[in-house]
Amino acid sequence: MVSSAPSFPPQIEEEVGKLLKLKAQLGPDESKQKFVLKTPKGTRDYSPRQMAVREKVFDVIIRCFKRHGAEVIDTPVFELKETLTGKYGEDSKLIYDLKDQGGELLSLRYDLTVPFARYLAMNKLTNIKRYHIAKVYRRDNPAMTRGRYREFYQCDFDIAGNFDPMIPDAECLKIMCEILSSLQIGDFLVKVNDRRILDGMFAICGVSDSKFRTICSSVDKLDKVSWEEVKNEMVGEKGLAPEVADRIGDYVQQHGGVSLVEQLLQDPKLSQNKQALEGLGDLKLLFEYLTLFGIDDKISFDLSLARGLDYYTGVIYEAVLLQTPAQAGEEPLGVGSVAAGGRYDGLVGMFDPKGRKVPCVGLSIGVERIFSIVEQRLEALEEKVRTTETQVLVASAQKKLLEERLKLVSELWDAGIKAELLYKKNPKLLNQLQYCEEAGIPLVAIIGEQELKDGVIKLRSVTSREEVNVRREDLVEEIKRRTGQPLRIC
Amino acid sequence: MVSSAPSFPPQIEEEVGKLLKLKAQLGPDESKQKFVLKTPKGTRDYSPRQMAVREKVFDVIIRCFKRHGAEVIDTPVFELKETLTGKYGEDSKLIYDLKDQGGELLSLRYDLTVPFARYLAMNKLTNIKRYHIAKVYRRDNPAMTRGRYREFYQCDFDIAGNFDPMIPDAECLKIMCEILSSLQIGDFLVKVNDRRILDGMFAICGVSDSKFRTICSSVDKLDKVSWEEVKNEMVGEKGLAPEVADRIGDYVQQHGGVSLVEQLLQDPKLSQNKQALEGLGDLKLLFEYLTLFGIDDKISFDLSLARGLDYYTGVIYEAVLLQTPAQAGEEPLGVGSVAAGGRYDGLVGMFDPKGRKVPCVGLSIGVERIFSIVEQRLEALEEKVRTTETQVLVASAQKKLLEERLKLVSELWDAGIKAELLYKKNPKLLNQLQYCEEAGIPLVAIIGEQELKDGVIKLRSVTSREEVNVRREDLVEEIKRRTGQPLRIC
Repeated sequence: MVSSAPSFPPQIEEEVGKLLKLKAQLGPDESKQKFVLKTPKGTRDYSPRQMAVREKVFDVIIRCFKRHGAEVIDTPVFELKETLTGKYGEDSKLIYDLKDQGGELLSLRYDLTVPFARYLAMNKLTNIKRYHIAKVYRRDNPAMTRGRYREFYQCDFDIAGNFDPMIPDAECLKIMCEILSSLQIGDFLVKVNDRRILDGMFAICGVSDSKFRTICSSVDKLDKVSWEEVKNEMVGEKGLAPEVADRIGDYVQQHGGVSLVEQLLQDPKLSQNKQALEGLGDLKLLFEYLTLFGIDDKISFDLSLARGLDYYTGVIYEAVLLQTPAQAGEEPLGVGSVAAGGRYDGLVGMFDPKGRKVPCVGLSIGVERIFSIVEQRLEALEEKVRTTETQVLVASAQKKLLEERLKLVSELWDAGIKAELLYKKNPKLLNQLQYCEEAGIPLVAIIGEQELKDGVIKLRSVTSREEVNVRREDLVEEIKRRTGQPLRIC
Repeated sequence: MVSSAPSFPPQIEEEVGKLLKLKAQLGPDESKQKFVLKTPKGTRDYSPRQMAVREKVFDVIIRCFKRHGAEVIDTPVFELKETLTGKYGEDSKLIYDLKDQGGELLSLRYDLTVPFARYLAMNKLTNIKRYHIAKVYRRDNPAMTRGRYREFYQCDFDIAGNFDPMIPDAECLKIMCEILSSLQIGDFLVKVNDRRILDGMFAICGVSDSKFRTICSSVDKLDKVSWEEVKNEMVGEKGLAPEVADRIGDYVQQHGGVSLVEQLLQDPKLSQNKQALEGLGDLKLLFEYLTLFGIDDKISFDLSLARGLDYYTGVIYEAVLLQTPAQAGEEPLGVGSVAAGGRYDGLVGMFDPKGRKVPCVGLSIGVERIFSIVEQRLEALEEKVRTTETQVLVASAQKKLLEERLKLVSELWDAGIKAELLYKKNPKLLNQLQYCEEAGIPLVAIIGEQELKDGVIKLRSVTSREEVNVRREDLVEEIKRRTGQPLRIC
């Protein structure tokens, strides 16, 4: 088209024509693509460095779950839409639906608890201790800097079965404490409460049954806003009488250890409520077990802990970091929940055709927040994170040794050594050494013509720059000896 | 309603009334649910036993990928719809779209290759060796008995970067062979071809450019049907002249080793085609490297290998099992592809705003088929698969020892021992021993009143039934000593 423009002199037209031909030879003009190069809103890729952090955190968590004898299961990323219906209350609007392309109506899983309950009912299991680590999906407003995403991992551990009271519940709290201690992300506290105590308290304070859930969600805000604000919401927005709110206020502002449990067991009103009494009795027993587990000092009975999800029926808990590890150069991440869980004895029954109940208790680790904290800490420390485990680079000192390098690297792979080579016919030795420095590879096996004649390989330590000749038949053993310490994972 | 039926005598009415009241106390009638208790079509849960198989297979694969110095990345399960558009040809109809709930249009990933290319372009990476293990989604007609699902894992290893010819390509084939050998799923063969040889062959046989792809897909069927049938399709359905088809037939029915490459390099027609010549030259070089890697006997140059996906530009390969391990009691699984891959030098350029190309070569392990094969083999052997790693059960011989059990199990957890206890206040010793037999737990630490007085724990081997008293302070070391062999993973 340009060449047909009448105003250009023929010489220019000719030159433009030549350029256009050259351009055509380069293939279609791909620079004209209009799409945005990004991941969907609220999601992210994990780079190798981030994956190294993720694997460390998962390793701590999985080792703990296995230490407690858990099996592992997996379920599909989507479920029939109706499987998720009626399980999440108001939050249901955050569920991702798949497009109706014919066939079943599907939704992405919102958590791992509902699929677990569906799995138990479907397989008629009455008894299992399992963990499940997988991504879940919520169309929430992401706050990615604080580790909140639309696609994020949950690490769940649950115990299903009809057991004696509070033994599995205590183990769940023990697991939470073990994991948070091992991860070394700072001091933490686990708040504990019981749905039955909350409901009993609402009842004796004069809240009508129909308002339990909404008042519950007001109470849940006490970790973020003052009692005055919560009271205003209860009275102004939710129509509670001020004296009813004040009665609630007297309770929910209390927290403490087992002595608070004992005090409330003597409370003339609360102790008259059957539900509350059951809850308090169980909490007392729970504290006994937590003392035997040596974690009672980490636990706080907190009457303001309410937890959002509808399906909890008994003890509930939530772990919070007491302070962010805000060291030099770190942005404060804000204190927040890093693990939570509770007892849900009715959920499996919602799936069982005959309504058979399977009591369950479990916990979920909020790993995305933990990833953020560990990443920030590593960045602040400017700590070098290796993203590969390569033990040795097979290098050559002269040209024309590609075949020898290929032979040697193959020998090493076959012997189980983690080895690499540069994909160049004749790489410079300096480039090969630089590659090791950048990737953190500790050893270089250098082939040279003299070494080939002598039947040896020059083994060089990258950090000390020391070189020794090793007989080829001893090379594998020598590399294993030098890198033999099992790679520390955490 | 029943009680208001006029035809029943009052006694019956009264009894029915009582029953209805009792029923009401049991809560809402959940038996009236209408939904089907299942996973979506083409998907499945993984039971603990299946997860044990999955973890074994993944472990072999990941160890190999790490042995070859790969980093690991992860990407979201969904991508912007436009990211996937125009990458899969006809198969695009199998992509799962998410419902438009406001915001971006999203689709579930169809493979890991396109997200990898998007990742490279987005992060302007020109050089990476990475693996990625994750689920992908295809609305295909599932054949689940043969290990084909709508949600399934891919295990991908890819090398991106501008390197000297055939070195990374040869490493990909080496990796494929290492993994398939380690998995011990039977003898296998890797078919190799090159897109440039195919295109060159079609050109010299007289196929018009526009028919390359469709004729390619006819050729691809040669591993399942006879040449006669393929020829009929080419001539009858796709309008090729019979003599053109015959010329193709002369080529595509050939397979062999490097000698076939050399023979075709002398082929008067094929050697005149620039593309084919390049492909053959590269294959010759590839065979040299494969010989150095000691895997040339596993490789067959097969002119009928075509591979479906559009994005391949050079060498392509596919591993097939030579025979199913159909032993006693096993149903034959049918021979099929268990790994595949190839070179795709143009895909990253489709995402880069300036069309900059990043040459890539990679492979994908078809793990679902492999899971099926390993599972079937385990079932046929009636092999017991442990689904936990518990080393010891903390048990008691008498009643009223729950507190002591809780104290001891907590000590063991804190010392890193994998330990369990039954969640009963007073379990019978027999039940505790039976639990160990079923779960394959090798040791029982038995607390009794006498042992408590003596400061010892009775340690029992479940298989030999031998019992010895161990001083409590030596218990951890003794358990470690007895179960100290690192658990063999495969």
